Amino acid sequence: MEIGITGIGSYIPPIITKNEDFLNHTFLENDGSSFPQDNTIIIEKFKSITGIAERRYAPPNLKTSDLGFLAAQKAIEDSGIDPEELDYIIFAHNFGDLIPGKIQGDTLPSLATRVKHLLRIKNPNCVAYDMIFGCPGWIESAIQAIAFIKSGMAKKCLVIGGETLSRVVDKHDRDSMIFSDGAGAAIFEANPKSGAVLAHASVTYANEEAYYLYFDKSNDDDACADTRYIKMNGRKIYEFACTHVPHAMKECLDKSGVGIDAVKKIFIHQANEKMDEAIVKRFYRLYQKEVPENVMPMSIHKLGNSSVATVPTLFDLVTKGEMPEHQLKKGDVVIFASVGAGMNVNAMVYRY
Amino acid sequence: MEIGITGIGSYIPPIITKNEDFLNHTFLENDGSSFPQDNTIIIEKFKSITGIAERRYAPPNLKTSDLGFLAAQKAIEDSGIDPEELDYIIFAHNFGDLIPGKIQGDTLPSLATRVKHLLRIKNPNCVAYDMIFGCPGWIESAIQAIAFIKSGMAKKCLVIGGETLSRVVDKHDRDSMIFSDGAGAAIFEANPKSGAVLAHASVTYANEEAYYLYFDKSNDDDACADTRYIKMNGRKIYEFACTHVPHAMKECLDKSGVGIDAVKKIFIHQANEKMDEAIVKRFYRLYQKEVPENVMPMSIHKLGNSSVATVPTLFDLVTKGEMPEHQLKKGDVVIFASVGAGMNVNAMVYRY
Repeated sequence: MEIGITGIGSYIPPIITKNEDFLNHTFLENDGSSFPQDNTIIIEKFKSITGIAERRYAPPNLKTSDLGFLAAQKAIEDSGIDPEELDYIIFAHNFGDLIPGKIQGDTLPSLATRVKHLLRIKNPNCVAYDMIFGCPGWIESAIQAIAFIKSGMAKKCLVIGGETLSRVVDKHDRDSMIFSDGAGAAIFEANPKSGAVLAHASVTYANEEAYYLYFDKSNDDDACADTRYIKMNGRKIYEFACTHVPHAMKECLDKSGVGIDAVKKIFIHQANEKMDEAIVKRFYRLYQKEVPENVMPMSIHKLGNSSVATVPTLFDLVTKGEMPEHQLKKGDVVIFASVGAGMNVNAMVYRY
Repeated sequence: MEIGITGIGSYIPPIITKNEDFLNHTFLENDGSSFPQDNTIIIEKFKSITGIAERRYAPPNLKTSDLGFLAAQKAIEDSGIDPEELDYIIFAHNFGDLIPGKIQGDTLPSLATRVKHLLRIKNPNCVAYDMIFGCPGWIESAIQAIAFIKSGMAKKCLVIGGETLSRVVDKHDRDSMIFSDGAGAAIFEANPKSGAVLAHASVTYANEEAYYLYFDKSNDDDACADTRYIKMNGRKIYEFACTHVPHAMKECLDKSGVGIDAVKKIFIHQANEKMDEAIVKRFYRLYQKEVPENVMPMSIHKLGNSSVATVPTLFDLVTKGEMPEHQLKKGDVVIFASVGAGMNVNAMVYRY
């Protein structure tokens, strides 16, 4: 059975926050101490590593579920399906709906239910649930959709990834500059006219790696000790990703039976430009190959890291012709890959 | 392929909170006004409807993931499997890990990752994720495990439901007396020696029903407006459950090919005794039958409503002989059913 994407959509929020907008932030080390450099230097270094020049934030009146709904509408329209035919709505996120300035995530009801509500889907057999798997949540939700379709439990699934990370970052942490808001969505179904998922792979490393991304108080000791934010051990994550992502990608590609030279594009989670480049370099090195030119579309410069939203958003941008330097034609083989909290890694080989 | 439960376990927290412990709470209406009755009357009425006399709360040093881990350990021991053989850990919850007195749920990393960490499972191919589906989350996670096994993606899955609702209730709301803490877990696998899931059914009603359970501020206007708690429209939920749960159960039983007279026990989500009785009565009425004696084991009197944990906990208690008035023998057919936020309903017909 060949299962493919018949519709894709994304919602890129309109608020642009540039690096210079962080110039008068008071950045602190994790232990509360100050940096010797001034913010100009900190931001320059940040940009040279992550590639991020600006990022998008959602308007205050929109929550994660709204972003997901807006992306889902586009995916449904793109596929041409009747939303009443959907068997599943799977919403990957990590923090629930967040109101700006408040810290309590809201998942009652689930964000998938909220999307179903906004889409006005009446069919009760369209089952709506949320899943949490760190940044790799969207690819993992797609794998779950594949399981439902393969096992005969579903024919058409809406797979959404959305997040408003701007509302759960510590403004006293340099890493706050990485994170952004956004949503992407796709329709997966067994349709001979669509492309096809050729293979997938997923792993969870939960020993010493489990808390490389974690929730903790602000770097500012004067801030409310009860309020916790996304925190990360950047160096450990970098090493972890460079070690494990290339192997997951190779395992997945080898399982698909497709040769390395047939890979046209790699849609990798937009976490950090230098890290993504290192991952892809190591991936090709596993095949004793150099990285081909223009194999890796990157949106991080303008969109930042919107977690679960980066991969579907990037795929949407490329397939809709929004990144003219990256073209795909029917039958091209691409790889999706992501890494994040858990620590989770996954990959999917897809024939467009 | 027959997929069954080869191990079951639960963790019932040790702290007993009796109804009289609520006697000096200041209960308020949703609009902040006082009740005309005193608390003795309120509590008496509460008990006569819900059946709840006492409930269990987790000790402050244990979070939802710890409860899930403790239940998982028992399920693994019960099944006799090597935890390194697990292909999936699925953790159903709705609020993440909560610290008593603080309001921010923590799902970074996922609770499934935390359990994998505590179980010291090294195998990276054991994929750990969380899912949110209201109170029916545990049964729904079991259905997901079945999809993975049927589609060839997994052989053995650990399915956990855990919650510490005592940490997300509004003490000024009478409904706070309903909710409790707990966790249950099971190993699902295709094993000819185990029982077998014969059929399952799931529905999501997300139109006017979507927000019957919701997050909102305290009934006490003087409380922090930013802190939100579980709130519910009890009357609407009651009507919804009595309408939709019997039909989901019937659809599921009819799909299984088993006759109504062969049903030995119904393990229903412990939401409210009167409601559960009304559901089961309507279910039998759909077959023009009276409810057989002793068909519905109930734990709500002593354990309250621990959301996703009630069904696996109840099944654990009965199969381990902790409820001597309820006995199961190999081959007996039982029904699992649950209803909750989403609004979601599901059912599963199981041959023990």
